[in-house]
Amino acid sequence: MGGAEKGVPGTFMSGCTCRGIDVHCHVVPAHFPARANGLTVRGWPSMMAADACHATVVINDKPYRTVSDACWVAKRRLGDMDRTGIRVQALSPMPELFGYWIETNSACDLVRYVNDTIAAIVAEGEGRFVGLGGLPLQDVDLANLELHRIVGELGFRGVEIGSNINGVPIGDSRFQPFFAEAEKLNAAVFVHAVRPTGMERLLGPAPLQQVLGYPTDVGLAAASVITGGLLQKFPKLRIAFSHGGGTFASLLPRLEKGYSAFPALNEIMMESAAVQARRLYVDSLVFDADILRHLVAVFGEERVLLGTDYPFDFREKEPVARIEEAFADASLRERLTFANARAFLGLDEV
Amino acid sequence: MGGAEKGVPGTFMSGCTCRGIDVHCHVVPAHFPARANGLTVRGWPSMMAADACHATVVINDKPYRTVSDACWVAKRRLGDMDRTGIRVQALSPMPELFGYWIETNSACDLVRYVNDTIAAIVAEGEGRFVGLGGLPLQDVDLANLELHRIVGELGFRGVEIGSNINGVPIGDSRFQPFFAEAEKLNAAVFVHAVRPTGMERLLGPAPLQQVLGYPTDVGLAAASVITGGLLQKFPKLRIAFSHGGGTFASLLPRLEKGYSAFPALNEIMMESAAVQARRLYVDSLVFDADILRHLVAVFGEERVLLGTDYPFDFREKEPVARIEEAFADASLRERLTFANARAFLGLDEV
Repeated sequence: MGGAEKGVPGTFMSGCTCRGIDVHCHVVPAHFPARANGLTVRGWPSMMAADACHATVVINDKPYRTVSDACWVAKRRLGDMDRTGIRVQALSPMPELFGYWIETNSACDLVRYVNDTIAAIVAEGEGRFVGLGGLPLQDVDLANLELHRIVGELGFRGVEIGSNINGVPIGDSRFQPFFAEAEKLNAAVFVHAVRPTGMERLLGPAPLQQVLGYPTDVGLAAASVITGGLLQKFPKLRIAFSHGGGTFASLLPRLEKGYSAFPALNEIMMESAAVQARRLYVDSLVFDADILRHLVAVFGEERVLLGTDYPFDFREKEPVARIEEAFADASLRERLTFANARAFLGLDEV
Repeated sequence: MGGAEKGVPGTFMSGCTCRGIDVHCHVVPAHFPARANGLTVRGWPSMMAADACHATVVINDKPYRTVSDACWVAKRRLGDMDRTGIRVQALSPMPELFGYWIETNSACDLVRYVNDTIAAIVAEGEGRFVGLGGLPLQDVDLANLELHRIVGELGFRGVEIGSNINGVPIGDSRFQPFFAEAEKLNAAVFVHAVRPTGMERLLGPAPLQQVLGYPTDVGLAAASVITGGLLQKFPKLRIAFSHGGGTFASLLPRLEKGYSAFPALNEIMMESAAVQARRLYVDSLVFDADILRHLVAVFGEERVLLGTDYPFDFREKEPVARIEEAFADASLRERLTFANARAFLGLDEV
């Protein structure tokens, strides 16, 4: 975190003078291997060409999402990064590739394949990518094996996990052996919405899952981390929530009030929700200056990280400008744009 | 809305000099009649004495909630109102008494009984109560019959409805005949959380249903009203959401962005989500000055209504002070404390 670097833009590799670190970026492999012996495995993805620059992820014989080749082509990413002021992307799987719902052996194969794909893009990236891998958290022991592999062998900075694992919120005690290991290995944990709750409450087309379901599920995931006391058990754990923590910041005052109003809640929570919240990280992906300022007020100036959802269409396309729109203070802008992410990802020299 | 009234406190009935109008207050009857012929009806409530001032609502042989006699004793309410600066309470059923999940004939009997209880408290209230009744919305035709009864015969200002009706969000087209009738009768619609989605995501004791589940469900209900275009179909409808609209204000920028990013969403929404949002009302029950200010920024100065959840323990106990903490401007304070509620409830002279 040398001051020299801050003062001397233009010294970065490949001529990039930008300093942004984007913690919320996804990878989809260009193709997926078939299962051995032509087996059909429920939930196993395949790719279907769409046009020269796009392909469609197909799951259970249905198109899941059509994505651009920026999902797997390092050079496409680097060009976009240069244009949007991003020096480093933290690469994580598209959440539907977590495979929590796939038969365990196949899920492990899928997760390893996706992580190896991320490692290959990192290797091509001229130092401008770091990895946040997936884990088969439907089996915590197997998840910890893969955690050791991606941190120890692939050099990833941490992991991306779902806001729930097959419907169980991440604050549940069954996941504590994983969080213990993540803390021990100094691995950053990025929590991303997946298969959200409340789908039956959405009135409209399928994208409402991402638009409304994702922030709802992430908000409840963060709440489960608070009511489950996760950061009290693992005080050195670095955990960040996608989409600005979703609805969590708006739920927090009511959770704080409930903590004093309900003895049953006071009993299980050893500490104020508002105090605990300040140990979480959230990304800046909220599309709104007022809410971004509110996140900084709630979580703290060192806890908000630039995030975009690159390269999907529904993303923040001007992430640095969005931060600058919300904050005039230069040192706060630097924190949100890259310094906080450096701390979250454990990057000393980027 | 005469200017004279604003200038001359002290002229109000029963010596009360306060002007607050609380749109979010609940009623529970002191007891419930048994069903005819000793029939057992699933979901039909009964009361069990707790102590001199409290009783426990029992549903399906289980204690549901222990409540104070302020739920049914008008004088207890008036004393509390004098102490907290509230001149008028809008009385609505405790949501578990909506009975949407009860067999229809019994549900109608329950709803009528609760509405008659509200009418009796209004009659005792020296002009300081107005009614917002329940409706058996599992059957829209029967709901409209009861709507006509409570507005036409009981003189209620409107209704309280759930954020969902047996899991179906209120923006769903099946409820449009009800909203059409509410608009025609000039009846205010207060939407309150009930039996929320996402319960399987909550980690901790039962009160988390109210603490986290309620605002989550209300937020998605408001979103369904937007994506369902309800206010475009019924432009004169006055509809308010409990708990500050829950998570809705935090979901709105993402919904607004999704409206421009996803053609499928753009197609069903005839108008920007942010523009539509400014036709909704929300109450002030958010326990936080920053969020209260944000609600005013999002929904508009004429759209936020004082609400407390009186007389339940988990309520805003200093509602006027909470508004004054958030806003210094005298005319804005007046709007939030009573003028907006007067417009929402259609009260010309209170």
